[in-house]
Amino acid sequence: MQEYYSDNSMMLVAVDCIIFGLKDNRLCVLLYRRGFEPCKGEWSLLGGFVNKNESVDSAARRVLTTLTGLNDVYMQQLGAFGAVNREPDRRVVSVAYYALLNVSERNTSVGSVSDNAVWVAVDSLPPLVFDHQEMIDMALAALRRDIKATPLVFELLPEMFSLTHMQTLYETIYGYPLDKRNFRKRVGTMPEVIDTGLIDKTGSRRGARLFTYRKQSPPTPENRPSHKPSTIS
Amino acid sequence: MQEYYSDNSMMLVAVDCIIFGLKDNRLCVLLYRRGFEPCKGEWSLLGGFVNKNESVDSAARRVLTTLTGLNDVYMQQLGAFGAVNREPDRRVVSVAYYALLNVSERNTSVGSVSDNAVWVAVDSLPPLVFDHQEMIDMALAALRRDIKATPLVFELLPEMFSLTHMQTLYETIYGYPLDKRNFRKRVGTMPEVIDTGLIDKTGSRRGARLFTYRKQSPPTPENRPSHKPSTIS
Repeated sequence: MQEYYSDNSMMLVAVDCIIFGLKDNRLCVLLYRRGFEPCKGEWSLLGGFVNKNESVDSAARRVLTTLTGLNDVYMQQLGAFGAVNREPDRRVVSVAYYALLNVSERNTSVGSVSDNAVWVAVDSLPPLVFDHQEMIDMALAALRRDIKATPLVFELLPEMFSLTHMQTLYETIYGYPLDKRNFRKRVGTMPEVIDTGLIDKTGSRRGARLFTYRKQSPPTPENRPSHKPSTIS
Repeated sequence: MQEYYSDNSMMLVAVDCIIFGLKDNRLCVLLYRRGFEPCKGEWSLLGGFVNKNESVDSAARRVLTTLTGLNDVYMQQLGAFGAVNREPDRRVVSVAYYALLNVSERNTSVGSVSDNAVWVAVDSLPPLVFDHQEMIDMALAALRRDIKATPLVFELLPEMFSLTHMQTLYETIYGYPLDKRNFRKRVGTMPEVIDTGLIDKTGSRRGARLFTYRKQSPPTPENRPSHKPSTIS
């Protein structure tokens, strides 16, 4: 056995969480200032080491729950970051995860556990520790990709939402405006977006029709649609 | 420093390569029988441990090059597999990569280094060691996703190819047939697929028109097309 497993290459494995949220219609990420060495005082993603008796996924979930107090947050592994000198003092391989938090509905919890955590808009980030900027860049690219192909956007929307709200969300994540008519035409072909029949009159006299999301069973090769499913891009 | 870095949770980090190739119009993956314990004699992906002084990406590249003798193979990280007991005797976190090999052009190299490596069709795999079946399932899903959104398919095609060849490749990867007329219509809207003007008459009297792939500069928000770019699905 000794020839196969060599203790020489044992290393630390960490997790880092890129937690996205919408605040004041801007796409933000949760950061904090490190309270310990190395790099004390610098801006960082939230993370921690993987313990011997927990899976890497569980470690990420633990970090997220400890910070936000929430268990049911959408979370997706982004990949491993394994450059030799990515941390100054030790060899640490970090597995990054991105998470989506509906800030408006849940902002009471965030910050109550970690006093130093703050939402920072992704288009005006401070210099970050280690390779955390690269992690955010990759998470953003993954979010933009995944939001086209999956119903991820509904993780960031409240239970009921207007189409204007939904469009603003896409625009914020993509970083550019969408044509309103094309957007509504495409949403019209999405069977999972259901008209509730309710009108929200808090924003305007005419009001905004409220929609909700209902999960559809995923297509299999047998029942996949003959046309490409509509996506927003 | 001691409070932050704890040696108690040091572990081994490995890489595993899911190497895809097309053989006899079937999507295959490169496997070998382990020549050592644990699990000697069982079918496995090709992998190895990450050394202290190499990045995780470099380790994957090293494993691939050692096996195939090739440096310029397309390779993409799939993610980390970190269940506590994924290997029986030690805690090992493995980072999986998938690679695409153009077998018909390069099959002389593969197998010359590793005598035990063989191509096995993904739809008739033997029982595999550890979580390697899960890795292949995820790699296949990633390949099917990425081939829609990126010019990945050209990594598996020769320099010049017929549209029938290209369609067969998509069908093999997706696992279901595509409509020929729709396929050709979509390819017609891809500016990166160039008609060479050459006809390959080796397969039929009428011959097949040969195309080639020319890389386009990626769209930016400023010059992105007003219509969704064509994809094959």
